Amino acid sequence: MASVMTNFTDCIAPELAAVERRFDDELSSQLRCVNTLVKHVSRFRGKMLRPCLVLLTGKACSPIGSLSDAHITLATVVEMVHMATLVHDDVLDDAELRRKGATINHLRGNEAAVLLGDYLISHSYHLCSSLESQFASRLIADTTNRVCEGELLQIDNRNNLDLDEKTYFQIIANKTAVLCAACCTLGATFAGADARTIKKMETYGHCLGIAFQIQDDILDILGDVSKVGKSLGSDIDKGKMTLPMIHFLRNAPIEHRALLRSLIASRDADKVEQVRNLILPSTSIQYAHDYAQRLVQQARDALADLPESDAKHVLEMMADFVIARAV
Amino acid sequence: MASVMTNFTDCIAPELAAVERRFDDELSSQLRCVNTLVKHVSRFRGKMLRPCLVLLTGKACSPIGSLSDAHITLATVVEMVHMATLVHDDVLDDAELRRKGATINHLRGNEAAVLLGDYLISHSYHLCSSLESQFASRLIADTTNRVCEGELLQIDNRNNLDLDEKTYFQIIANKTAVLCAACCTLGATFAGADARTIKKMETYGHCLGIAFQIQDDILDILGDVSKVGKSLGSDIDKGKMTLPMIHFLRNAPIEHRALLRSLIASRDADKVEQVRNLILPSTSIQYAHDYAQRLVQQARDALADLPESDAKHVLEMMADFVIARAV
Repeated sequence: MASVMTNFTDCIAPELAAVERRFDDELSSQLRCVNTLVKHVSRFRGKMLRPCLVLLTGKACSPIGSLSDAHITLATVVEMVHMATLVHDDVLDDAELRRKGATINHLRGNEAAVLLGDYLISHSYHLCSSLESQFASRLIADTTNRVCEGELLQIDNRNNLDLDEKTYFQIIANKTAVLCAACCTLGATFAGADARTIKKMETYGHCLGIAFQIQDDILDILGDVSKVGKSLGSDIDKGKMTLPMIHFLRNAPIEHRALLRSLIASRDADKVEQVRNLILPSTSIQYAHDYAQRLVQQARDALADLPESDAKHVLEMMADFVIARAV
Repeated sequence: MASVMTNFTDCIAPELAAVERRFDDELSSQLRCVNTLVKHVSRFRGKMLRPCLVLLTGKACSPIGSLSDAHITLATVVEMVHMATLVHDDVLDDAELRRKGATINHLRGNEAAVLLGDYLISHSYHLCSSLESQFASRLIADTTNRVCEGELLQIDNRNNLDLDEKTYFQIIANKTAVLCAACCTLGATFAGADARTIKKMETYGHCLGIAFQIQDDILDILGDVSKVGKSLGSDIDKGKMTLPMIHFLRNAPIEHRALLRSLIASRDADKVEQVRNLILPSTSIQYAHDYAQRLVQQARDALADLPESDAKHVLEMMADFVIARAV
């Protein structure tokens, strides 16, 4: 994934390098034990999707296509927020793999994972508070409020086989799309865009985030662990209802629905495999894919009024890529 | 404890009530599952030490003894930060009792506890970002950075029988005293105090925080679980080195030191009781108490130049109370 993204991000390569430096500077501590932990988390750094959204929307919305230092700061802030949620998700999910590296909690225990996540989120607010205005601090804090709500709603609906699409979308909007939307809002706002353009960029980020999460759902059923680099089938194992499963439980032949329900409740060793074999031949994967495809189109439409630029072109490609990716 | 504090806080009773309202308003959610969790955490609300510090220093430093709305906001913010650390500490410590109530993690699992702590910390930054200036946001984020560092340094030194006093004080300064110092800095700053007075209030908060933590150490060995309302002896159980233990391991007769070392390493069911019986007759409790007493005097000295007022008087009494408390 990282290498595919690299081609996308040529036009913001120096800025992304600056983000990495600011990330490391902000997190560096006088305590060796802190730096050891932080070093480990830096290895998790993946495709930098969220910083890319800040930088690309900033560039696409800037009249002269240039970025401010605030964009670098904000791109770093959103990556820290994202990393904090990953680290705490690992506590939540007890996942043993994350981006092909051992998770913090697996290596160092839940305590270190909780504290490292706290350290990341604290530094994200700290870095954000270095900006002159409170605008970004308010938006970021509002965003993290909603991310927490999404996660809480998700665990409240664990093993809820009757979860409806409306609640499902409420969960993933908060959990994933709100942060993507905030990235694009910030990128556009700090490029001096007008209110209408900012709103369009927010829509782009929102649709991209939802599509991204649906693709994650699909990959959790389809994917190959050696490529994706995180534990697959974990949604199934953890009783997380995904869009294909929700569709299946409402639209598959009645006896298949009953079978899926009993499989989800079971403790069979090959439960994940059985669920896959049941859902794969159904129309539910295609349904989820089509849904994501429509969101990608909405995301692209939101870009339509932007003047032509490399950054705009990359944003368009990223929208397509989000649901084309196999990892 | 709450009832003793009530007498102290008569002069800020309306403001404390306003803090409670702002606390509830800020945390209320449109999601029922979130409100259920938050309701549970409100029951944990204890002596409101940190809000009291903001309000009392604010009142003591104000030329006309009045508080601004920002003081209410900030008093609420620091309580949320403190509650977040309590909730995440419960994940860390797997404590089964906290303020006589079941802990969030015990009731709802580690996942809910992690997320609820995240929700609290996110809302604390969110509320703080509602203020006009970035000053408080910066100080609060800098404070939480250091709280995390203190916690990480503490778990890095778990079961380190050779922990020295210097590192011990570094841990508790970050873990506890930095937030108390920030409360007093904020109270004084938002009352329009001059730089010298703000610095003195910071010193007051710092000394109070350290003394408070030392008293916690002492109570963990001395205390009575029915009064303190949290699991006692947990420092011993969890391999946390406290000031009496550090002193004992350097100053007790050599054979007693060896005995304490082997006890700490043991898994005996009555280990906590044995450690108590060993330390109680030694001079190590008195040493820790004297240390805290000197800090209380420093805290009182820092108040000396303030004009006489009810708030100043209460701050003086609070300093004494911190080490007189049995709970």
